[in-house]
Amino acid sequence: MMPRWKGKGLQAKANADPMSKIVSQLQSSLIQFETRGLLSSCSVLVEVDAELADLLNRSCFGRPRITAQEDKQWFQLDMEEAFYLCFSLKCLKVIGEDGSIKSNEELWDYFKSKKLVFPVSYKVYSHLRHKNWVVRSGLQYGVDFVAYRHHPALVHSEYAVLALSEGDNDLNGRLRVWSDVHCTVRLCGSVAKTLLTVIVNSNNQGANSPSCLEHYTVEQRTITRWNPERSREDQTGPKNGTKKSTKHNDLAGTVKDKV
Amino acid sequence: MMPRWKGKGLQAKANADPMSKIVSQLQSSLIQFETRGLLSSCSVLVEVDAELADLLNRSCFGRPRITAQEDKQWFQLDMEEAFYLCFSLKCLKVIGEDGSIKSNEELWDYFKSKKLVFPVSYKVYSHLRHKNWVVRSGLQYGVDFVAYRHHPALVHSEYAVLALSEGDNDLNGRLRVWSDVHCTVRLCGSVAKTLLTVIVNSNNQGANSPSCLEHYTVEQRTITRWNPERSREDQTGPKNGTKKSTKHNDLAGTVKDKV
Repeated sequence: MMPRWKGKGLQAKANADPMSKIVSQLQSSLIQFETRGLLSSCSVLVEVDAELADLLNRSCFGRPRITAQEDKQWFQLDMEEAFYLCFSLKCLKVIGEDGSIKSNEELWDYFKSKKLVFPVSYKVYSHLRHKNWVVRSGLQYGVDFVAYRHHPALVHSEYAVLALSEGDNDLNGRLRVWSDVHCTVRLCGSVAKTLLTVIVNSNNQGANSPSCLEHYTVEQRTITRWNPERSREDQTGPKNGTKKSTKHNDLAGTVKDKV
Repeated sequence: MMPRWKGKGLQAKANADPMSKIVSQLQSSLIQFETRGLLSSCSVLVEVDAELADLLNRSCFGRPRITAQEDKQWFQLDMEEAFYLCFSLKCLKVIGEDGSIKSNEELWDYFKSKKLVFPVSYKVYSHLRHKNWVVRSGLQYGVDFVAYRHHPALVHSEYAVLALSEGDNDLNGRLRVWSDVHCTVRLCGSVAKTLLTVIVNSNNQGANSPSCLEHYTVEQRTITRWNPERSREDQTGPKNGTKKSTKHNDLAGTVKDKV
């Protein structure tokens, strides 16, 4: 499935303004202003000025929250987003309820206590973000994340992402019965997204600290409906298979600066 | 959600020809002709004449199968359909590979060996059929069954049905994580069906023989997206709640002869 840009010329606009650059700018600015976030249940609240608000909007981290303080702008980050800025990009510090800055280990433990599957979902989130995909909640499509090639204002999300963990310990996970697979593939098809499963293998490293993450490996698989009618009419033969496979690797892989 | 008839006057046509009557006619004819089915992997094949073919079509049991024998008409019944005709309506005998007629107990064991969840899925199938719903496979919507108020030629299916079993032993079942619930409700909404979960409680009766079925109890729940906007604008107040609740009980209940 090709990326569906939301209008003419938007692909060129995205090419001219790569996501990797925007995220780098955000990183620099957050470090420069020594930005602090406040832990608040399952999210992190950040007070920002106009410049940072613009960068957070453009890089798609968090959502602006309207408050009674008209002159102040707050952003609410999801757990994965906050941890990515803290741990991976090292540009945000998070303050706990006791007023002290949380270490990465403390934050990791806190997020795990709020969301049992946080280690797996974070691995998937950071894996895709590192490859310059814009990653947002997949709540409304019944998946963990959706992945965009660039800002959602420019392009529709291409992938509906399920974060799965390798092994038998994930008895409550998704896609364990065929009816769930059918349901998910059908829904993804109807909203023009490809189902991407990112399967995380912890390699028996556990999840005691965020340093475990570097030992986690991921395997990406797209699941699509095979349409025999369409495949039969396609005359490219063996080439077709190769092409499709390459395409999937590419799409599920890194978004290059020139998308 | 109201039933969506496929054309003008079709509701009247359905009223004039209740499903309960068609199924009774099928039952009588199958008994009269001493019809035999042949066990074939996960289905039962029945050779029928034009009259029986018409009745099977009108009552929506099985699907016609085209064979090389032009003068003969075969129907392929799913396991639940075949067992319903054998065990509940007592109008079909099934012959095994050894040429002898299978007892209900033998058929039960065979179907269980082919489909682990057969006792639960059969309970749900027979429960809805007893209430005069037409029940078909829900494969293409990622659910176990779809339920129609009358023949699918006249009306769209109203319910997407998931057969669930009560208790902790169903670790591979559906709707165990929120993303699965979101996915299923969203898909059902997009195809204008209401999600109906039929939860079977075996009351510790096991599943050793089909006689266990009479001790099984079922609980029906519809799962729908609550739209605050719509609910707020509805001015009927408390009445609304009562009305909705009654409506659900009615729809998920027996389809009366006058639908």
